[in-house]
Amino acid sequence: MLDATASGVYVIAATPFHDDGRLDDASADRMVDFYRGCGVTGLTILGMMGEAPKLDTEEAIGFSRRVIRRCGNLPAIVGVSAPGFAAMRALARSVMDAGAAGVMIAPPASVRTDDQIVGYFAQAVEAIGTDVPFVLQDYPQASGVMMAPSTIRRIVEAHASCAMLKHEDWPGLEKLTAVRLLMAEGAMRRVSILTGNGGVFLDFEMERGADGAMTGYAFPDMLVDVVRLQKAGERDAAHDLFDAHLPLMRYEQQPGPGLAVRKHILKLRGAIQSDAQRKPAIPLSPLARAEVSYLLARLAERDARAKGLGLHPETAGRGLGAEPCQTAVGGSVRE
Amino acid sequence: MLDATASGVYVIAATPFHDDGRLDDASADRMVDFYRGCGVTGLTILGMMGEAPKLDTEEAIGFSRRVIRRCGNLPAIVGVSAPGFAAMRALARSVMDAGAAGVMIAPPASVRTDDQIVGYFAQAVEAIGTDVPFVLQDYPQASGVMMAPSTIRRIVEAHASCAMLKHEDWPGLEKLTAVRLLMAEGAMRRVSILTGNGGVFLDFEMERGADGAMTGYAFPDMLVDVVRLQKAGERDAAHDLFDAHLPLMRYEQQPGPGLAVRKHILKLRGAIQSDAQRKPAIPLSPLARAEVSYLLARLAERDARAKGLGLHPETAGRGLGAEPCQTAVGGSVRE
Amino acid sequence: MLDATASGVYVIAATPFHDDGRLDDASADRMVDFYRGCGVTGLTILGMMGEAPKLDTEEAIGFSRRVIRRCGNLPAIVGVSAPGFAAMRALARSVMDAGAAGVMIAPPASVRTDDQIVGYFAQAVEAIGTDVPFVLQDYPQASGVMMAPSTIRRIVEAHASCAMLKHEDWPGLEKLTAVRLLMAEGAMRRVSILTGNGGVFLDFEMERGADGAMTGYAFPDMLVDVVRLQKAGERDAAHDLFDAHLPLMRYEQQPGPGLAVRKHILKLRGAIQSDAQRKPAIPLSPLARAEVSYLLARLAERDARAKGLGLHPETAGRGLGAEPCQTAVGGSVRE
Amino acid sequence: MLDATASGVYVIAATPFHDDGRLDDASADRMVDFYRGCGVTGLTILGMMGEAPKLDTEEAIGFSRRVIRRCGNLPAIVGVSAPGFAAMRALARSVMDAGAAGVMIAPPASVRTDDQIVGYFAQAVEAIGTDVPFVLQDYPQASGVMMAPSTIRRIVEAHASCAMLKHEDWPGLEKLTAVRLLMAEGAMRRVSILTGNGGVFLDFEMERGADGAMTGYAFPDMLVDVVRLQKAGERDAAHDLFDAHLPLMRYEQQPGPGLAVRKHILKLRGAIQSDAQRKPAIPLSPLARAEVSYLLARLAERDARAKGLGLHPETAGRGLGAEPCQTAVGGSVRE
Repeated sequence: MLDATASGVYVIAATPFHDDGRLDDASADRMVDFYRGCGVTGLTILGMMGEAPKLDTEEAIGFSRRVIRRCGNLPAIVGVSAPGFAAMRALARSVMDAGAAGVMIAPPASVRTDDQIVGYFAQAVEAIGTDVPFVLQDYPQASGVMMAPSTIRRIVEAHASCAMLKHEDWPGLEKLTAVRLLMAEGAMRRVSILTGNGGVFLDFEMERGADGAMTGYAFPDMLVDVVRLQKAGERDAAHDLFDAHLPLMRYEQQPGPGLAVRKHILKLRGAIQSDAQRKPAIPLSPLARAEVSYLLARLAERDARAKGLGLHPETAGRGLGAEPCQTAVGGSVRE
Repeated sequence: MLDATASGVYVIAATPFHDDGRLDDASADRMVDFYRGCGVTGLTILGMMGEAPKLDTEEAIGFSRRVIRRCGNLPAIVGVSAPGFAAMRALARSVMDAGAAGVMIAPPASVRTDDQIVGYFAQAVEAIGTDVPFVLQDYPQASGVMMAPSTIRRIVEAHASCAMLKHEDWPGLEKLTAVRLLMAEGAMRRVSILTGNGGVFLDFEMERGADGAMTGYAFPDMLVDVVRLQKAGERDAAHDLFDAHLPLMRYEQQPGPGLAVRKHILKLRGAIQSDAQRKPAIPLSPLARAEVSYLLARLAERDARAKGLGLHPETAGRGLGAEPCQTAVGGSVRE
Repeated sequence: MLDATASGVYVIAATPFHDDGRLDDASADRMVDFYRGCGVTGLTILGMMGEAPKLDTEEAIGFSRRVIRRCGNLPAIVGVSAPGFAAMRALARSVMDAGAAGVMIAPPASVRTDDQIVGYFAQAVEAIGTDVPFVLQDYPQASGVMMAPSTIRRIVEAHASCAMLKHEDWPGLEKLTAVRLLMAEGAMRRVSILTGNGGVFLDFEMERGADGAMTGYAFPDMLVDVVRLQKAGERDAAHDLFDAHLPLMRYEQQPGPGLAVRKHILKLRGAIQSDAQRKPAIPLSPLARAEVSYLLARLAERDARAKGLGLHPETAGRGLGAEPCQTAVGGSVRE
Repeated sequence: MLDATASGVYVIAATPFHDDGRLDDASADRMVDFYRGCGVTGLTILGMMGEAPKLDTEEAIGFSRRVIRRCGNLPAIVGVSAPGFAAMRALARSVMDAGAAGVMIAPPASVRTDDQIVGYFAQAVEAIGTDVPFVLQDYPQASGVMMAPSTIRRIVEAHASCAMLKHEDWPGLEKLTAVRLLMAEGAMRRVSILTGNGGVFLDFEMERGADGAMTGYAFPDMLVDVVRLQKAGERDAAHDLFDAHLPLMRYEQQPGPGLAVRKHILKLRGAIQSDAQRKPAIPLSPLARAEVSYLLARLAERDARAKGLGLHPETAGRGLGAEPCQTAVGGSVRE
């Protein structure tokens, strides 16, 4: 069960489909194994980038069960944000029964004032039950809901089952510091903070007090290394590795085409069999595909050069031949 | 099956719950009978004021089946707007199999440009099937999506299964005229236009070319009479009746507390057993309840006075003792 | 100078233009006299319905000066909401120097959390000076900013120069009651509350504790009477009068065409010489013009009938021949 | 005068203030010289990052005049977006009289449909005059207005005075390609396309057909080099240089604190005397300041290492000792 000491990388998992749009069970299994090989601490499924709204209820529950089972000892968090509490409760109870470690909830755009936000989470907790650990997702760009640090504090203090803040306000570095300060001052119980937003500020977020990342960048092994290096105090090495990936991370973070990029790379890395998305989907144009190839080639070349220069491999840009992740092989990215 | 010649009043039905939040099947039946007694042409269920998002999938299908069965020869339209096409398709196919006359679809806030709106409906039609008649809901205040008349034209022209426009842009009189003009000019196939927005512009909407109303005002018998009077050319009588109800209609149209008002009156009129809403709900405060009582009393008094003055009863404000609607009795509104 | 005891009707004044778009000085004077004749307590200029953003700075100051001078002993409030504090300060200081009683400020859409809203008003007060009485405008439909009663309390408590709340949240009756309750409990200093939103809830707002209205309905004499009747405890009479006007008020409240309706009636009543608006403007279509004529005729007829029936004239619908307002004559509305 | 052949870098200029908030004329001059030294083609002032709304009208005109005069033969574009056309016209005529090369206009959030957007620009052009070259700013994240390529086409085709598209939709690569395709097909007159968004996609935007950049990144000399390298076909070199700056560009692109970062670096580079912003402002926290220092140090170190490795200097990351820009000296960034 998820608790407030969680740290590391909880990768936002893709939802694999066959080319014809059916859920791809075999790829779901393979993807879990791939993520495990990348060294992630846990998985988060049915997130915003997991095409959750494109599944009907039965599919959502079936997919969750399969992934949770394959995860084994890896904790799995399930996104249960829903237009209403009945559906939220139904999904939350189903996945917890199936062995999920917790659920994730983002507020709907209709709540606006501090009190409305706090009230919404009170109703959500009442709906799912106080025994279900939950992640408070703070993602204003997607939800339209702006939570002040003092509002986050009120929610955390009101609900012992709030185990984690998924921090993806943008910009968010000062907010992260403000929330951690409330905890340091004793004004707020300590909870885990993992950061999202495609990871594009993970380098400094770790220095501001994040416990890790919860995002779906197609090189979760890099996220794992950055988190580990920062925790080990190897700041420059962390930034070197991070910076090497930033051009691609930025490209993958684009709302819309970003998911196509992510699935495309996951397919190249052998994690899933097809990069198909359900509609509405923005496919990868031929130009975009070529741009991704160029970025991948630069990443691979950088990896090679760093080794030639005798630099520490971890600082050289985790390329496509990363060892810890057996399913990723350098050769497989030549399209 | 719904087609483009539909007219009259399709009442937006409430979803009756027990005080403890369970669906109230007996009230669902009673409510259908009540609406039939009010003279409506059809029902629309799982609309925005039908608390649709508060039902889980199973409940939504079960409730739809029950209402459709009870409707018998009355056509029932089911709202199937959903965050994704899988859920939309699943619900649409279920309710059509159960005997629904058609479905209603509003676009999500994420579509913005004319092309995006048109594209969304193309995908929705592909999802539900071209054999399912659908109502295009144009409700910018709720959806955030602004459709120009030319965009409505493109959707109607692209999809033979589009049978009706639910017009509830606000303000909307000029838009209604513009859409009707496109039809008159032959630029656009004629479809039915029913109007929403709580009915507060129904008086003039009928004069601008509407075929009737699709809204849930708790006196649908009045809506039926206004539509009939306007079609019969009795303009002054239509306005007299409408104006008598406007103070209450305005009160009931308030987003948030409006649904509480509506369910409260439906309960007073004997249509449903409880005015309970599922959370999140805005209950009726004691002050608001007293204000509604005051408005109802004025409506009843006006009814009486009109009769005393020898005015045509239909022009006098359809009060609480309206004959065609057997479940509504004047005495029942003394709380 | 405006203070927290203000009550009555502060009419939102139109900004009169010549047909060619130039400011019409003579009409500005005539309009002030008209409003005075209607019995208003004060004027508010450069409000959202005053086409303020369509004036350049020089025009805004010139128009304000002229109106303030003509107002004489009638207090004039000037809307100074601006994209930045430099422009807000410049306008506020100019109009206060010219004799304005106070200014009105609405927050920009960019502020969202409670703290951000409170912080914005702190900066605004710093900009205009603590010696300038200001009206806090709470109009979420236009501003996009949702203020909880507790947020209003914080602003009022922080700034002695906050003299008035312009309440036009919608729906807003419960909020009005909540704010008044905070005052009654001593949690918040008492300030004046005038209500907006075209006046369409003024009947109950007065019963909920409003001190009057600040809106621009083209029959401010009716608003004056409703406020007076409610203060005198003549509830039924107030509602009778109000209800008679509601069909037209509703029509005039429409965003967009509403301003055209308002200026059209003000012209019919002799208050201004032209109903021209500056671009962007939504003109009155021939159909809409005819609808307004119909509503005006019904209002006049009702007035006559009420007199014939021996009803108290004030309960009969203040029509077009209202005495206190010499510029309004029944005959003048036959177009 | 700006025309459709414009290319290169039009830097979005800061607006320099003294620490007490007064406009800093001397820094305005120095900043123009700095930008000229960086090799920019032109300047854009009073843009969204230029704190334009914080100036009152008089200040805006005064600042524009001073900058335009100092620019001499460098073309200066002035942002004239305004809540109304009177203010837009007044500012546009003033700055054109003062020698501006053109103006830039973004639509207000209130326009939504394709027709409304096209109509808005028709009115804007009527207001400023058809003789004033204008830049169509497409920046949905800030404006809330989504323009399809076909809408851009309609505006460009309708107005010969539209000389340039400022492209900063995000994501925007496919849109840029779509617009260029309309031009290539002859469906649309060719206009200049410069890209914004802090420059974080400039690498690929140049490959997609952009003519250059219009953004305010504090190393405009780097933008100049990237544009030049891409035009010269030196793709890898362009990306090497770009990638070296991406960590800092990303940091500076953050809405809110981004402007503080930009002004801070401009001050470090000697371009302006103070990094003061007018309120509302988000200052640079000590932590953020240290993070910027770290990023600058990495940039400088990278520059040095590249030279040591014998890499082409242009591929090595334009650091702080860039020669073409005399005001920037490596030593000056040790705070």
